[in-house]
Amino acid sequence: MRKNIESANNAIFKTALGLQKKKQRESLSQYMIEGPNLIREALENRAELLRIFVRIDEEKRSPELEGLLNEIQRQGIDIYFLSRKLFEKLGETITPQGILGVVKKPNYTEEDFFHPLSCQANGNMLVLDRLQDPGNLGTILRTADAAGFQGVILCKGTGDVFAPKVVRSAAGALFRLPLFFTNSAEETISYLHKYEKRILAATMQNSQVYYKVNLCGNIGLIIGNEGNGICQELIDAADETICIPMMKSTESLNAAVAAGILIYETVRQRSLDNSEQ
Amino acid sequence: MRKNIESANNAIFKTALGLQKKKQRESLSQYMIEGPNLIREALENRAELLRIFVRIDEEKRSPELEGLLNEIQRQGIDIYFLSRKLFEKLGETITPQGILGVVKKPNYTEEDFFHPLSCQANGNMLVLDRLQDPGNLGTILRTADAAGFQGVILCKGTGDVFAPKVVRSAAGALFRLPLFFTNSAEETISYLHKYEKRILAATMQNSQVYYKVNLCGNIGLIIGNEGNGICQELIDAADETICIPMMKSTESLNAAVAAGILIYETVRQRSLDNSEQ
Repeated sequence: MRKNIESANNAIFKTALGLQKKKQRESLSQYMIEGPNLIREALENRAELLRIFVRIDEEKRSPELEGLLNEIQRQGIDIYFLSRKLFEKLGETITPQGILGVVKKPNYTEEDFFHPLSCQANGNMLVLDRLQDPGNLGTILRTADAAGFQGVILCKGTGDVFAPKVVRSAAGALFRLPLFFTNSAEETISYLHKYEKRILAATMQNSQVYYKVNLCGNIGLIIGNEGNGICQELIDAADETICIPMMKSTESLNAAVAAGILIYETVRQRSLDNSEQ
Repeated sequence: MRKNIESANNAIFKTALGLQKKKQRESLSQYMIEGPNLIREALENRAELLRIFVRIDEEKRSPELEGLLNEIQRQGIDIYFLSRKLFEKLGETITPQGILGVVKKPNYTEEDFFHPLSCQANGNMLVLDRLQDPGNLGTILRTADAAGFQGVILCKGTGDVFAPKVVRSAAGALFRLPLFFTNSAEETISYLHKYEKRILAATMQNSQVYYKVNLCGNIGLIIGNEGNGICQELIDAADETICIPMMKSTESLNAAVAAGILIYETVRQRSLDNSEQ
């Protein structure tokens, strides 16, 4: 169905506008994605795309966009056309090809998350403990997805991974990477123990250099808050604490870079491990 | 010397305001840093701090800030106090502790850059070919600094590393990490050959997995533009091309994360290399 929305009082428009707020994203269990690339990825990865908003003056412009809209319509997803003014209220950035989508948040049960049907993933879990920066969060999800991690556990106090900036920098990882939310450090630890993950906590000091530690197979790699690191309970629960060596003069690495270095060391070690068998 | 600036027509204020523009940063060979942490790092690393601007209502607030101002004054650096309104025109962000500094750009000759007096650095060079995103640029400089790289060669077309966002995300690396600017791919290649760097080009495909390639000692590691990668001339000049393996579904990694993974693989291999000797 293709329909025009003429007024800012339209109920569907108002609901979509509310998704800029975390509270509404949580109560509706929906979030917003921007641009044709993410929408195409959402379709390919069978994310639950609820509806699409298109800037009306884009309609005639690009044959690719029209092809995308036809595909969306074929799948029975409603398409709403908005004036430039209304459309720009909905979006965070002014996308050159004005298209936005509303996506249902994925919902993984314990069973789905820890016993995935598809066993392509490598059993490794990433655990994010109160990370805040949206760009870092999205970039870390993108890296974990690229590295084939099985999923990401998000501890209470971690920034909202469905915020527009996170969605943008995650570059499609949200459609593929299973997510699981915990309410306390105790709960996180109990799941990691129950599923026999070897717990590795990334710290700034007093720990072993990451590439001298065995990071193969079935690990839970914890990355902490940008300023304060990982909470003491999670550090205490770790089987090993690891750090990235730095020149004396440097205070720290960017959190997303540090996470990337550790995540890919698991990939490297795993590849050696497999080639030795 | 401590002095108040009362008017937006003050010549020193106007010159500093101009540093928001790349043209002015280039013609004056100066750039701006924000916040007490970066200013402290500039002093510690003997960056050439030319003058300081302080938001006048900050003056009485924090004993640490007053201590910092005393240290600045002891070093003979002029301190200018500005009204909140004037100060906010100068800064990019509203810093909680309102202090800004103007720094002379470092200037490395070929001799300084390729034959550093201090041989703490490991001989590895990073080469940035037309990277654009300021956050990525700064983060990559920060990582190269932490990893002890000898310096960074910036090819023509790379974003301005003295832009405010780059300065912020570089987190002090600009005060320590030698930089060298080249005007063409040919010039970059001729320097890398002259100083016998083994040229490694990071590509997205048709190349070897990075951890299977020898990345030890005296390398020139090239990282390319976020969308288009490395230019063909630099790829053709590479001794080896390397890539980061990814799950099929993923298109790419964030450029700063990819650079971080490759930079730290050189650190890991070097440490093994040293421990075997």
